[in-house]
Amino acid sequence: MYKCNSSRLQALLEDFSKFGATANGGVTRLSLSQEDVLARDYFCELCKELGMEIQIDDMANIYATLPGKIDCPPIVIGSHLDSVEEGGKFDGVLGILTGVEAVRTLKDNNYEPEIPIMLVNFTNEEGARFDPAMMSSGVIASKFSKEKMLQSTDKNGITFQDALQASGYEGEQENRLKEARAYIELHIEQGPVLAANEIDIGVVEGVLGMVCYEITVTGESNHAGTTPMSMRNDPMIVASRIISSLHEQLGQIDDKLVYTFGRMHVTPNIHTVIPNKVVFTIDSRHQNPSVMREVEKHLTSLAVEEDGCQIRPVKLWGRETVFFDETICHEVEQSCNEHGYSSHRIFSGAGHDAQYIAGIIPSAMIFVPSINGKSHCEEEETAFEDCVKGADVLVETVLKLQKKFSMDHQQTLKK
Amino acid sequence: MYKCNSSRLQALLEDFSKFGATANGGVTRLSLSQEDVLARDYFCELCKELGMEIQIDDMANIYATLPGKIDCPPIVIGSHLDSVEEGGKFDGVLGILTGVEAVRTLKDNNYEPEIPIMLVNFTNEEGARFDPAMMSSGVIASKFSKEKMLQSTDKNGITFQDALQASGYEGEQENRLKEARAYIELHIEQGPVLAANEIDIGVVEGVLGMVCYEITVTGESNHAGTTPMSMRNDPMIVASRIISSLHEQLGQIDDKLVYTFGRMHVTPNIHTVIPNKVVFTIDSRHQNPSVMREVEKHLTSLAVEEDGCQIRPVKLWGRETVFFDETICHEVEQSCNEHGYSSHRIFSGAGHDAQYIAGIIPSAMIFVPSINGKSHCEEEETAFEDCVKGADVLVETVLKLQKKFSMDHQQTLKK
Repeated sequence: MYKCNSSRLQALLEDFSKFGATANGGVTRLSLSQEDVLARDYFCELCKELGMEIQIDDMANIYATLPGKIDCPPIVIGSHLDSVEEGGKFDGVLGILTGVEAVRTLKDNNYEPEIPIMLVNFTNEEGARFDPAMMSSGVIASKFSKEKMLQSTDKNGITFQDALQASGYEGEQENRLKEARAYIELHIEQGPVLAANEIDIGVVEGVLGMVCYEITVTGESNHAGTTPMSMRNDPMIVASRIISSLHEQLGQIDDKLVYTFGRMHVTPNIHTVIPNKVVFTIDSRHQNPSVMREVEKHLTSLAVEEDGCQIRPVKLWGRETVFFDETICHEVEQSCNEHGYSSHRIFSGAGHDAQYIAGIIPSAMIFVPSINGKSHCEEEETAFEDCVKGADVLVETVLKLQKKFSMDHQQTLKK
Repeated sequence: MYKCNSSRLQALLEDFSKFGATANGGVTRLSLSQEDVLARDYFCELCKELGMEIQIDDMANIYATLPGKIDCPPIVIGSHLDSVEEGGKFDGVLGILTGVEAVRTLKDNNYEPEIPIMLVNFTNEEGARFDPAMMSSGVIASKFSKEKMLQSTDKNGITFQDALQASGYEGEQENRLKEARAYIELHIEQGPVLAANEIDIGVVEGVLGMVCYEITVTGESNHAGTTPMSMRNDPMIVASRIISSLHEQLGQIDDKLVYTFGRMHVTPNIHTVIPNKVVFTIDSRHQNPSVMREVEKHLTSLAVEEDGCQIRPVKLWGRETVFFDETICHEVEQSCNEHGYSSHRIFSGAGHDAQYIAGIIPSAMIFVPSINGKSHCEEEETAFEDCVKGADVLVETVLKLQKKFSMDHQQTLKK
């Protein structure tokens, strides 16, 4: 059983956190920005030093391959180097750097893989500069059309296509990730569950299904002082009642269901005017598709009219629950056990490249604890010892999969 | 009993609605704008034609006086020519133009007043260009400091002082309205009560007391997908519950109580993020000070903390109920009766110059119906026949007050 080098991993994380460092200890490393390009350059340099071969595809995804004794599809470790604005120094980059540390540890131990090992950096996972999130894994998994993505524009009017060309990282479409034996993504949890329960490792079984609805409540604006209550059609009062009552109803469905009324716009939003429109969103997630259907039933069966206001729910988007590969999950769990690290089966509430890659390659994820569950902010934090535990589990999982896949290969040869 | 000239008043209203006419039949005539200055010029011209003497004070308030046989403080008819952005063609200007029509009708009938009659146009009643509303009546009634008002700045960075100087309407402080026998302001109701009840005239007894509170609910932002419900401090859910529960509690206090949750700001207002702060306002109004105290008790006794969120109510402002002069109200009511117009005692829910002037001069207001209660919008409408009924009542009230005050004067002389 190999152990990763804690101080080496810590130094690596500290090095990368300089690319786009913010005043308060976070990073702003938007996709294909100068900071991102510097981080990419350094990542490629590190991989070349480890004897890995670099390839770039047409979405600027970077693939670094450590050849195996067998010429076959690789075991892939992937994540992303980009961040949100004023994000943390763990989100995404930790998956790349534990990958580098994993390869270094194998080298330390003179391990020569049977199956090739590939590290991948996916472009624009955050969607913070170019909408949508998980853009490039989505393109290679045929979830998004590349032509549309090229036209996605940042807040300064720069298209993804222009940024791609300017970055120096526009490669060939033929290099896209197609076949692989397994895809593993290590990530911070971005939620409070592991830390609160003092669990070392989350064995991620999948990504929660979700729906996002926008509910528009339309009433009538009138003067706040001159309109008797009985003559009002006040959408704010109706919207508040809907939120309170959905909270009561959805709260009874299942402990694991989450729902968030994150955005609200009030029109005209003047203290002396009864609003004429209140628009709010509800984002809800659960692993069980039948629970999600129940949530949607509550949302679509809201009264059409209440207290003189029209209520119109519109589904903005949704995704089905993504279930990860049970074989890989099992190996992750076994690796935890062998290292003596506590583990917990968990679903990801957030989206990750793995959810699209799972459509073309058997995939799973490894979570490490997020202190206070904070993410997408400068306070994002994971203890270095937890990062190393994650790297240990990553290495061990790769070793187990190496053994399994090379045995499979030998048996295929025998037939 | 004199009758006003309906077609003449209608023509006058149509003439004035050209100053700042909008595409959809409203007006934008911000205080001291070019459009307002044109309306002021025309108003002065009309008054001069009627033999009235014009004076301007240091807040650009215009006073047009028709001399009386007795040299004594006048009976004042006042209102304002400015409008909000994309406002209606009745708000404010109707009070000025029914005043002009009243004087014209007296002239038609060769009526020579004993007591001087004064028309006043107050500057910046709306507060739409320069905050606060009712600025100039407030200054002359010592509610606001003139020095502060001069620094009030419009959205283009122009101060009230600059606009005052540029307008050509900056006069002398000594011309300010000080002493008068009575102040009468005719205005559209800006609410739906008279129209809904098919009442011709509202006899305005006062202006509702009001309070405006801002309630801040502070929670904690976290990822909408990764944070279990039990580990959230979600201010949106708490704010919605507060609004629903205040609506229930306040709804039971009194039929005439009004309250409005008009403004809400959610931070960070992203559909995938649990908000960390929800700030909303409640504006509440009632004529009875003890009812307003009960409302404030509900607001100040909200729980300090609920579901992990802090709740902090802050009083933004309040005003005591203003009670108008019963003698004038009585004369307005009598005038309605004599004309055979139905009338109804009413409180104004909106603010008007009369509420400040009432502090220095016995005051009252006359309301005419607003179709559908609409105001501060281009759809604002009052039937012309209702405007003329208002003018008839205004003339009759002035005549009754003339009689009363000249009798008072004679009795004083006899003593």
